Amino acid sequence: MYYGADYYPEHWPEERWAQDAQMMREAGFNVVRMAEFAWTRMEPREGEFNFGWLDDAIALMAEHGIESVLGTPTAAPPAWIMDAYPEAALVTEDGRVMTYGSRRNYCPSSGVYRVHSQRIVAAMAEHYADNPHVIAWQIDNEFGGRCYCADCQAGFQQWLRERYGTLDAMNAAWGTEFWSHIYTAWEQVPLPWEATRLHNPSLALNYRRFMSDTYADYQRLQIEILRELAPDQPISHNLMGFGYPNLDYFDLAADLDFVTWDNYPRFMGTPNLSNRGLAHDTMRGLKNKPFWVMEQQGGPTGNAVVNATPRPGEIPFWAWQAIAHGADGIVFFRWRTARFGAEEYWHGILDHHGIPSRRYREVKEMGEALERIGDKLDGSRVAGDVAMLLSYDSRFAFQNQPHNPHLDYPDIFQRLYRSVWERNLGTQIVSPEAELDGFELVIAPMLYVMDEEIAQRLRDYVRNGGTLVVTCRTGVTDMDNGIVDAKLPGLLAEMCGVTVEEYDSLDDGRTVALKGAGELAHAGGAGLAWADVLALEGAEVLARYDADYYAGEPAITVNRYGAGRAVYVGTVPDSDMAGALLGWLAETTGVESAIQAPAGVEVTERVSDEGRFLFLLNGTAQEQVVDLGEGGEERTRGESVSGEIKLEPLGVRVVQRA
Amino acid sequence: MYYGADYYPEHWPEERWAQDAQMMREAGFNVVRMAEFAWTRMEPREGEFNFGWLDDAIALMAEHGIESVLGTPTAAPPAWIMDAYPEAALVTEDGRVMTYGSRRNYCPSSGVYRVHSQRIVAAMAEHYADNPHVIAWQIDNEFGGRCYCADCQAGFQQWLRERYGTLDAMNAAWGTEFWSHIYTAWEQVPLPWEATRLHNPSLALNYRRFMSDTYADYQRLQIEILRELAPDQPISHNLMGFGYPNLDYFDLAADLDFVTWDNYPRFMGTPNLSNRGLAHDTMRGLKNKPFWVMEQQGGPTGNAVVNATPRPGEIPFWAWQAIAHGADGIVFFRWRTARFGAEEYWHGILDHHGIPSRRYREVKEMGEALERIGDKLDGSRVAGDVAMLLSYDSRFAFQNQPHNPHLDYPDIFQRLYRSVWERNLGTQIVSPEAELDGFELVIAPMLYVMDEEIAQRLRDYVRNGGTLVVTCRTGVTDMDNGIVDAKLPGLLAEMCGVTVEEYDSLDDGRTVALKGAGELAHAGGAGLAWADVLALEGAEVLARYDADYYAGEPAITVNRYGAGRAVYVGTVPDSDMAGALLGWLAETTGVESAIQAPAGVEVTERVSDEGRFLFLLNGTAQEQVVDLGEGGEERTRGESVSGEIKLEPLGVRVVQRA
Amino acid sequence: MYYGADYYPEHWPEERWAQDAQMMREAGFNVVRMAEFAWTRMEPREGEFNFGWLDDAIALMAEHGIESVLGTPTAAPPAWIMDAYPEAALVTEDGRVMTYGSRRNYCPSSGVYRVHSQRIVAAMAEHYADNPHVIAWQIDNEFGGRCYCADCQAGFQQWLRERYGTLDAMNAAWGTEFWSHIYTAWEQVPLPWEATRLHNPSLALNYRRFMSDTYADYQRLQIEILRELAPDQPISHNLMGFGYPNLDYFDLAADLDFVTWDNYPRFMGTPNLSNRGLAHDTMRGLKNKPFWVMEQQGGPTGNAVVNATPRPGEIPFWAWQAIAHGADGIVFFRWRTARFGAEEYWHGILDHHGIPSRRYREVKEMGEALERIGDKLDGSRVAGDVAMLLSYDSRFAFQNQPHNPHLDYPDIFQRLYRSVWERNLGTQIVSPEAELDGFELVIAPMLYVMDEEIAQRLRDYVRNGGTLVVTCRTGVTDMDNGIVDAKLPGLLAEMCGVTVEEYDSLDDGRTVALKGAGELAHAGGAGLAWADVLALEGAEVLARYDADYYAGEPAITVNRYGAGRAVYVGTVPDSDMAGALLGWLAETTGVESAIQAPAGVEVTERVSDEGRFLFLLNGTAQEQVVDLGEGGEERTRGESVSGEIKLEPLGVRVVQRA
Repeated sequence: MYYGADYYPEHWPEERWAQDAQMMREAGFNVVRMAEFAWTRMEPREGEFNFGWLDDAIALMAEHGIESVLGTPTAAPPAWIMDAYPEAALVTEDGRVMTYGSRRNYCPSSGVYRVHSQRIVAAMAEHYADNPHVIAWQIDNEFGGRCYCADCQAGFQQWLRERYGTLDAMNAAWGTEFWSHIYTAWEQVPLPWEATRLHNPSLALNYRRFMSDTYADYQRLQIEILRELAPDQPISHNLMGFGYPNLDYFDLAADLDFVTWDNYPRFMGTPNLSNRGLAHDTMRGLKNKPFWVMEQQGGPTGNAVVNATPRPGEIPFWAWQAIAHGADGIVFFRWRTARFGAEEYWHGILDHHGIPSRRYREVKEMGEALERIGDKLDGSRVAGDVAMLLSYDSRFAFQNQPHNPHLDYPDIFQRLYRSVWERNLGTQIVSPEAELDGFELVIAPMLYVMDEEIAQRLRDYVRNGGTLVVTCRTGVTDMDNGIVDAKLPGLLAEMCGVTVEEYDSLDDGRTVALKGAGELAHAGGAGLAWADVLALEGAEVLARYDADYYAGEPAITVNRYGAGRAVYVGTVPDSDMAGALLGWLAETTGVESAIQAPAGVEVTERVSDEGRFLFLLNGTAQEQVVDLGEGGEERTRGESVSGEIKLEPLGVRVVQRA
Repeated sequence: MYYGADYYPEHWPEERWAQDAQMMREAGFNVVRMAEFAWTRMEPREGEFNFGWLDDAIALMAEHGIESVLGTPTAAPPAWIMDAYPEAALVTEDGRVMTYGSRRNYCPSSGVYRVHSQRIVAAMAEHYADNPHVIAWQIDNEFGGRCYCADCQAGFQQWLRERYGTLDAMNAAWGTEFWSHIYTAWEQVPLPWEATRLHNPSLALNYRRFMSDTYADYQRLQIEILRELAPDQPISHNLMGFGYPNLDYFDLAADLDFVTWDNYPRFMGTPNLSNRGLAHDTMRGLKNKPFWVMEQQGGPTGNAVVNATPRPGEIPFWAWQAIAHGADGIVFFRWRTARFGAEEYWHGILDHHGIPSRRYREVKEMGEALERIGDKLDGSRVAGDVAMLLSYDSRFAFQNQPHNPHLDYPDIFQRLYRSVWERNLGTQIVSPEAELDGFELVIAPMLYVMDEEIAQRLRDYVRNGGTLVVTCRTGVTDMDNGIVDAKLPGLLAEMCGVTVEEYDSLDDGRTVALKGAGELAHAGGAGLAWADVLALEGAEVLARYDADYYAGEPAITVNRYGAGRAVYVGTVPDSDMAGALLGWLAETTGVESAIQAPAGVEVTERVSDEGRFLFLLNGTAQEQVVDLGEGGEERTRGESVSGEIKLEPLGVRVVQRA
Repeated sequence: MYYGADYYPEHWPEERWAQDAQMMREAGFNVVRMAEFAWTRMEPREGEFNFGWLDDAIALMAEHGIESVLGTPTAAPPAWIMDAYPEAALVTEDGRVMTYGSRRNYCPSSGVYRVHSQRIVAAMAEHYADNPHVIAWQIDNEFGGRCYCADCQAGFQQWLRERYGTLDAMNAAWGTEFWSHIYTAWEQVPLPWEATRLHNPSLALNYRRFMSDTYADYQRLQIEILRELAPDQPISHNLMGFGYPNLDYFDLAADLDFVTWDNYPRFMGTPNLSNRGLAHDTMRGLKNKPFWVMEQQGGPTGNAVVNATPRPGEIPFWAWQAIAHGADGIVFFRWRTARFGAEEYWHGILDHHGIPSRRYREVKEMGEALERIGDKLDGSRVAGDVAMLLSYDSRFAFQNQPHNPHLDYPDIFQRLYRSVWERNLGTQIVSPEAELDGFELVIAPMLYVMDEEIAQRLRDYVRNGGTLVVTCRTGVTDMDNGIVDAKLPGLLAEMCGVTVEEYDSLDDGRTVALKGAGELAHAGGAGLAWADVLALEGAEVLARYDADYYAGEPAITVNRYGAGRAVYVGTVPDSDMAGALLGWLAETTGVESAIQAPAGVEVTERVSDEGRFLFLLNGTAQEQVVDLGEGGEERTRGESVSGEIKLEPLGVRVVQRA
């Protein structure tokens, strides 16, 4: 288990470094991330390198038992590059050239920027390949941002040429007969710049894919250098959790050795622990293996505006939640709050003045608990029999066409996850390409973009005995984002045993009452945002609409298909109906929590050859009592426990059982 | 009576066409609109034409008894034109060049775009002039959008030169002494690009006129070709009803043979039947003759966001309302929902899958009713003794200077229309140039821009016995949008028998209580947005303010002038006061509904040599009983009726009486 | 006392002028401001001057006993300049070039614009230097607006070079190690154009200072010409009160002979008399001497939207309030409402039609009262023992980083001023450089930017017996806007006897209850926007938080320091707590109102060798009774008064006492 902080020695006088290292050691730290954002420090002029300060910092840390992860600095270009090569700047959707003075202001397609990137990455790799205290690399920082420059337009046209081969094929796939947008030369194809109306949805989806691919390609450029020059040091990139909408993280992760991500529960508003759980599960799911939190919130966040300060106990609680969901590394952002620059109010563990305070004390206490746990969690994996299927293609498609202001892909995903999370059912997040064998229950919210291969995998899963839940807006388009020529849910209609006869977008925030039926007869609730009016083609009804002109028509159905069942949810169920549905699904599939716990106490399990590690996290503001039943060893305190135990507010326990 | 749909055969496999035609025939269709938006299909390369597919489609339709209206395709330029001539692109107010990928992205001033437009229109006209199944043309599609490119600036300067002759005349008319904006060369005159503050109101109004004229000019370019090459086929353009603010539709309509428009009651929010009635009356009023609805909503509308689906019965109800207000053609948009492109969620009668559903059945039932009516409505005109005066000059002026966030020209127009409509008084919409003889009542909301000619016509109307209603903000500016040098209502002050001593813009959403007086003593209500404080110069008081420092001062007055009466309404009356005022006006002028009907039942009359056709439209969700009194022949069902008849929710009856 | 109006003779036929002058004389006017915004009139072509019309207007006014202030016309460039020199146009933050058709559309750095400005100013100065009826100059009009053009970028780089000397010094001061924004050439330094994220706060603050300096520099250019050519005529510029955020008015005022400002109480929403008082006090404080209101609201304001009309009596009331706060000149804007141009709804005393109405009568009555007062107020100064410290550096810093949506520098300043104003304690507004000796109480809201010199002055003030109030966010940054390396309030921590242990930004509009303690034990209320959690280092507690995890911790403290006291307010106190605190401060420092008056009656005192002039202003809508006690001479009516006197709503009295 790695435990540490993001450290920027270049921000502080060298005389201070030893004091920082000493305080880190006392907090139980064994890792720092450094060098990220220090390009000009390392290469003040083209080809002139300066690593001495970083060598010193790595060595000093090592003396205190702290290893280093190094970031490549490409997220923030030096002024000397952007001043000399203005064409390397990112261009926004409305045509503005992103000028200097911020970060992520480069175009990922830019040839000249790639040349500069390769040089600094190669220099770092050569210099640090053999340094035993450099244990890993982080590439760039939080990839993202769409570019609309001339290089990207040319790149997009080339990307399309590779995808479609001929203009005829592309025109046919995109339906460019509409508005006579038939392209007769590749050079005519525009980027989806701001326009008087919506762009062609096929173009829009492909542009999003192209930008995602372009970042993956730019990342690969750096990976290849690092793999060649520093083959023994694993490589990561710090992603942005479930919430970040613009990159296909499955693609980015495929090229990495391990995934890390940046977790800020109090960035916007009150922390949502269910959404945090989903984010961790998603990051773990990208490679189906343990991950690190490379930036774990260490103080109040803020840019122009400062957000609420983390309440006492929250910082370690959030870090424990990460571990409970499979993190093998916790790196707090940042060690000490910067006294300068755009992020001077994005606070670290220490305040600007560098004197230890409440936050340092909390982090130190957690460090002590981790030392008590020692290496016991090594090699353990998070258990879970439920899968949720995350389709970036579908998510991108809804960005262009949200359908309804309240029909948000991440929102419906988070709603359904929440119903699973409230029952403490271990959940894996998988891609549409994933194998589903072995899951007891698969939930695929709004799987809008689909081809026969995906459909076949889902049908096989159900036919072989699985239980699959799909929702409104499933199977609507093909991989080119053209709408299918069949009643919805298209390729899944037969399996679901229903067809969508009409749909009603619930505009102006309308909702529609739902009334349970059949096996869900006890349930009630409301449908949000969208209402499919269903015709039964063999399915049984689980809920009906109870209002509007389609009152009495089926809203949620279940269909036996082969040895399994397919549930169709024709609306966005509110928490009452979603809870009832998930309860019924858990019961009928037999998935259950590792232990019964009161509401608000999160339960996960990490499992290894050493045993089963039960995590109990009291996310409430009240003391909670959990009945362990069978006893075990509580590892954060090092004591034997059994039967009823008490958890203080934000209290955490890790109980090892056989 | 024409009845049909907008059809895009190029979106579908040719094998499907016959099935579509067959289904159309079964629904009673006799017309389709085609070719609109098919430029690249028809001219894939400059001067190379391909009409075979369209010939086939027209012929196939004709075989099924369906005639064709052809659209010229200029609303959506081919990629090959815009790529080769980027200067033809529209430029927005903030200087952005409208890039490719949408529609209406061309500059209507552009010389090069005009050359391309002329070529395709001439080719179509030559090809189809003698085709007996092409019964009419539609030019372009929904003109609109303001351009701020260099061509438009030069065009505007030339337009001003023609209007004013000399810079001195223009400077004087515009009051450019203000801020010393005295132009000493035509080339200095800017377009009203985004600026630190408001532009000169004279410049702003004239720019709006110039853009309106430019579209009319561009339309004329196409009309001239069609008139020359295809003289027997009448020409239209599909306008956007009362709501569209940026073009003087009287000007556009003057050049057309007949008016058509696009009617989408469920585009934004709940349908407003009164506003729909006004839109129909406006479209009929443009040429004072029957019109077509060229796009009648046939399914849920939507772009990025989908709007609510039309409730059962709404689609035919809206179409019947159009006929009740004078439509001689109903063309549903569109036949089948496109599976591709920006408008794939702007649904047609058929869904994406092309299988008939509820909406098709409803349209088919209406087709059967229309067949029962047959040719009986031919040559009939909508009756009405009330006129409302629509001034695009005034409307344009308020766009630049709204005066108050709640003082909206269309809103006050719609409010007053609603009071007339609720009483089922037939209404004609006329321009400020119209002859008013023969109307019992004329309402001219916010006739802000006025000259002596307009004023004289209004005074003559009243002097000769008419009843005229004007409101606050009447007679404020001259035709150059300079404020008059007299107490308001300026040229109408003497006729109205009042002067405006002060006015109070009701900011922050304030309203002011009103209390009836004199003949309106029973009335009460509130004034919105604006309050003129009036001095009586002979008028009698109909209502007084009942709050604020001007409590007790006159708010609404009536003045005898010659043989008639002029009513001055110094505020925006709420529905209570507007209803009371209109009730009194109806009573004292003797205008009345063709028949007394319960609230929510709309009544209109179409009259011809054949008789009087009473339209009864139950716009409510409840059954309504109407006492016909005198009997007649109900034509949608083909039965004799008299006395009390019942109308189901959304029920429609057409009763022919002598 | 000067009394008059802003007059634009060039807007009206010359035949009208004499009538205007006559009406002005009858209203008691003795001054007009003219020529502002008449550049093209005065210089229709480069170097060709036309002053005859202005000579005539000045002479005509003089015949009626009215003197003239002349404005230089540079706020609105002629079309002939901007057409010939497009590079002189202002560029906005998002890169748009401000096109012609408005005002303030020039770049203040522009060399070519400065050449043109110098020529017209010199020509006017030469022409009018010896005209005895030209009594003063106003430079330009309402300086403001930030420019982001290439000239400004070069100017900024030069300005930085002068400030920092070397790039190393600048990089160190700005902490450009952050994100590696280390500048290796001056040409690399950007302007803070719109970026993906916040700019470096040091860059952002310095850019604001640079723009402020640039306007001061541009003003100086004109001042130098006028001082040389017309040395006997004093010079002013019309500022925009406390509310204008973008210029350091202390700097602008330093170069002027006297300050004037533009006062529009009903520009946005209901007038706020406390904010008006603060604005007057600020304008007076800029040079610590009497000022003029150069534009005093004379009718409803409005641009695209018209605001509420001034209620009866408000116009003179507002003018009296100005005099009560130290104005020696009242110039109404404008004489007559323009019939043309962007400001045709920014009404003057006369309406468009030029016929006297209520507003003229009110102004005339005030003129008569002023004549009764005569020269008695000459040489008088406004009394006051309280100072409030206004730091434009701090204000600029918060513009870039507001910290919290509800933590607004002007807002907290206005809140604290209001608590002083409600007690009618005379207040002086001073800069951070001001001497504080002699004030009984000094309030320094959010003095965020600080150096040792400022801190030393504050400490000396307290040590010598003063009472100082500071708030949260005090002493946070150095003069480069880098955050200090010490616990807050940094340089004032020892004096305040507290340190800030943590802070909580109250996001989502949260507030936190406060409970008085110690000498404020009776008080209660709430803290808004921000909560400092304080550790006592010798201070006593005046209020504690009464909610959240810091319930019971100190929120407001007082510390004895030397002979004085330092009060630290760790939050934004609501009106209850601010009122209680100010009450206690007034009591314990012994400052008090000149007379006890009912709530809503404002009391100020102007003092000269002639005596003390007590101003009583009833800002309420009810009659109020004030007990004068000692009698005196009421000067607006010319009568002796003593004991209880009645003030009608909006009634004003000026009582001279010994």
